[in-house]
Amino acid sequence: MKVFMNERIVKVGLVGFGTIGSGVAKLILEDADSIAARIGIRPVLACVVDIDTTTERPVKLPEGILTNDLNRLLGDKSIEIGIELIGGTTVAKQVQIKMLQAGKDVVTANKALLAEHGSELYNIAKQNGRCIAFEASCAGGIPLISSIRSGLTANNISGIYGIVNGTCNYILSSMTAYDEEFSDALAQAQKKGYAEPNPTLDISGSDSAHKLAILSSIAFGYEITIDDIYCEGIESISKFDIQYGSEMGYCLKLLAIATRCVEGVSPSVNQYAGKMPATQEGVSHSVNSMRGQDARDTISLRVHPSFISKDNHLARVGGPFNAISLFGSATGQVMFYGRGAGMMPTASAVVADIIDVALGNSKTTFFNLAVRKKNENAIKIETIDNLICRFYIRIMCKDRPGVIAQWSKVLAEHNISISGALQHEEIGPDNTVPVVIVTHPTLQKSITAALEDMEKLDSVRGKPFCIRIVDIPEDKD
Amino acid sequence: MKVFMNERIVKVGLVGFGTIGSGVAKLILEDADSIAARIGIRPVLACVVDIDTTTERPVKLPEGILTNDLNRLLGDKSIEIGIELIGGTTVAKQVQIKMLQAGKDVVTANKALLAEHGSELYNIAKQNGRCIAFEASCAGGIPLISSIRSGLTANNISGIYGIVNGTCNYILSSMTAYDEEFSDALAQAQKKGYAEPNPTLDISGSDSAHKLAILSSIAFGYEITIDDIYCEGIESISKFDIQYGSEMGYCLKLLAIATRCVEGVSPSVNQYAGKMPATQEGVSHSVNSMRGQDARDTISLRVHPSFISKDNHLARVGGPFNAISLFGSATGQVMFYGRGAGMMPTASAVVADIIDVALGNSKTTFFNLAVRKKNENAIKIETIDNLICRFYIRIMCKDRPGVIAQWSKVLAEHNISISGALQHEEIGPDNTVPVVIVTHPTLQKSITAALEDMEKLDSVRGKPFCIRIVDIPEDKD
Repeated sequence: MKVFMNERIVKVGLVGFGTIGSGVAKLILEDADSIAARIGIRPVLACVVDIDTTTERPVKLPEGILTNDLNRLLGDKSIEIGIELIGGTTVAKQVQIKMLQAGKDVVTANKALLAEHGSELYNIAKQNGRCIAFEASCAGGIPLISSIRSGLTANNISGIYGIVNGTCNYILSSMTAYDEEFSDALAQAQKKGYAEPNPTLDISGSDSAHKLAILSSIAFGYEITIDDIYCEGIESISKFDIQYGSEMGYCLKLLAIATRCVEGVSPSVNQYAGKMPATQEGVSHSVNSMRGQDARDTISLRVHPSFISKDNHLARVGGPFNAISLFGSATGQVMFYGRGAGMMPTASAVVADIIDVALGNSKTTFFNLAVRKKNENAIKIETIDNLICRFYIRIMCKDRPGVIAQWSKVLAEHNISISGALQHEEIGPDNTVPVVIVTHPTLQKSITAALEDMEKLDSVRGKPFCIRIVDIPEDKD
Repeated sequence: MKVFMNERIVKVGLVGFGTIGSGVAKLILEDADSIAARIGIRPVLACVVDIDTTTERPVKLPEGILTNDLNRLLGDKSIEIGIELIGGTTVAKQVQIKMLQAGKDVVTANKALLAEHGSELYNIAKQNGRCIAFEASCAGGIPLISSIRSGLTANNISGIYGIVNGTCNYILSSMTAYDEEFSDALAQAQKKGYAEPNPTLDISGSDSAHKLAILSSIAFGYEITIDDIYCEGIESISKFDIQYGSEMGYCLKLLAIATRCVEGVSPSVNQYAGKMPATQEGVSHSVNSMRGQDARDTISLRVHPSFISKDNHLARVGGPFNAISLFGSATGQVMFYGRGAGMMPTASAVVADIIDVALGNSKTTFFNLAVRKKNENAIKIETIDNLICRFYIRIMCKDRPGVIAQWSKVLAEHNISISGALQHEEIGPDNTVPVVIVTHPTLQKSITAALEDMEKLDSVRGKPFCIRIVDIPEDKD
């Protein structure tokens, strides 16, 4: 160990010695010299707490620092920072609270906990004069949270469109590239370590929704929890939908989307202004209300499979990578790309937070950035029913005369306008033919009602399948 | 003006009321409420200094704050932060020094000044207990500098590959998309406001080199100035080279590249290990020396037209946009994309710095981040002669027998191995035929010597034209 002039030793205690915990330990043990030389802060791993103290990990700890006793960490006054990497929302919550109450700042990667109980924990931190830093909770190695809170702080952010779950992106990329069904792509992802043995949290979209809650909270400055987010996963996606969408110029991604219209002005609605049938039920009202009759911030928060243009930058994000496009009032579009998970990228974010906390910068930011309560009559979370977007609809029709007349009549009755259609000369299961329709911008509730009516048609078999088309407002020169 | 609880007023003085200055004034005047609500800091524009106090600007200042007297800013003790947006390296330098000596922190977008006199100014700042913040100096609205210094701080950065000049990217994108010659694309860029009436600073690569000096300084932690950077511009690029490169799978970009090999290990050299002819003059020595005989950090810094794979993310960055790929030891590849110039994106970065300075975070970072001197025997700046890369070479040959035998003999004499070639059945000016060759990884000095010998051949007309092929080590899953 070289010791550098003016360096400050910062003792940290780590709780949770799994994959990310091992990465953090490795980074601290191997790179402390380099960090001290560059920044004058020397992180020292004083203690690692885990219930399992025997399993071999990919990093060798110094003698005597691994323990199953949390009190060793809590009682050691020389430990300034507690790192919670247990995950989950029960034990982890208690551990964070105990560490804060013991006078330690907290660094965590726990998106589920912050998305569900963030406000409560932030308040406990503030009461104890401590901060919680959570760069590692979203998008792994990409410095996304610090960018939103610091680099983009002069902007009002109007939109976030993110691929924030590497597991889903890996599966959808494989299904697209190799014409695979979901179950095969999932199995492959599990084999490669990109999906957990129990993949539910990822493929259901919940993990993305957790991250979106955190990102939209800091981007918009409101308390947003997982309950505010509409969420659909990728379990029902078939390779045929990916293929048909591709033929129409689209690429399928699981997107986490947060858009805001401030005092009635919505970039995402304006984008469609004048392109919707004027008489469509609800739409003109909705657009009008979004245009100024309601002075509250309206926020739309959703995670769902999304067809995006193949030309969009996000369409080119393959494998387990993450990418997030943000729209700032001054910057316009800014995009971030990198590894959103994995041992070392996530450890990178944890250690960056340790340094930021040690420098004092995290605390300044934590105490200064306002997070307003939702119930201040200042914000309205838009329901999914009021979403306006274009839709991809696949109907399995019987192959006989009069079918088009039937379903097109249903769409007409709901005032839904068709912008494109696709029908191959192929016969599917049960002598059905897949018919694919793309709509003009339409209210979600009109689509939902139309699909219910279509399902009742004797010429249609099963429930029509629907995927939202997301027109990310890409900046052009 | 709403006043928020606990908000702190921070008075700023602005010097230089041009395009960026107007954007900064606009952002402060229009968004102070929103910034105060979110961050508790209210920036107040106390004074704007410019020699021209009469020309109309795109923002209306409050009565009485525009002046041509710098002393009004310097003498006003209530002004905490001085913003220098004059540009250039003479008056701007004196203004920054005076502001620092008057006890003000400095925020600037002046890349040329920092690239040439950064160390001197940083020292003056430190002597006066002040900081200089310069997020706006590189990549406009993209929070790149804060990301390197804060979000990626746990990483040793081994490579930076950036499109950091929007003017050049606009010109090259146009030449590629519309099969235009350089002069036409430049004229179009000037018409659209993407190039200055005098475009030299941009098209010569100097602006990119200024930015690279700043980025590599903070990424590697060494004092790096413009003089350390090899620089070639885009003035000599013809549409034919873009077209031939495209046929071979490449896209032309002006890249700013900084790579580092630490204690003999270079990712960029390792990438080519075993792929070079073992006997090639200098190469094996160079690879060996880079592999451990020299324990110094070796840094390669260069700006030049670069053929990159069309599949690389940077190839898809069009028009005036910027994008930067960074390679961190823990994160792997991270990429940032956005508007690298323009009134509001750059103003966004300036105001972000104002807030960061007001919060105290800038100062902590400024005083903690070490910038080592180059002459500590710890760092070696690699000369361009020792660069190893692949090369695109275009030779204008006379259309007669024996020509290939002549130039291929020269390459063989210099031990340069060819990986691809292209010759169309077309006759160019003076009855010449363009022959395009792509080499295997080769030392720059071997190529330089070979091109000189080729030029002497009676079958070759003029100087062979050469463009480096840059294999950006893109992360895969």
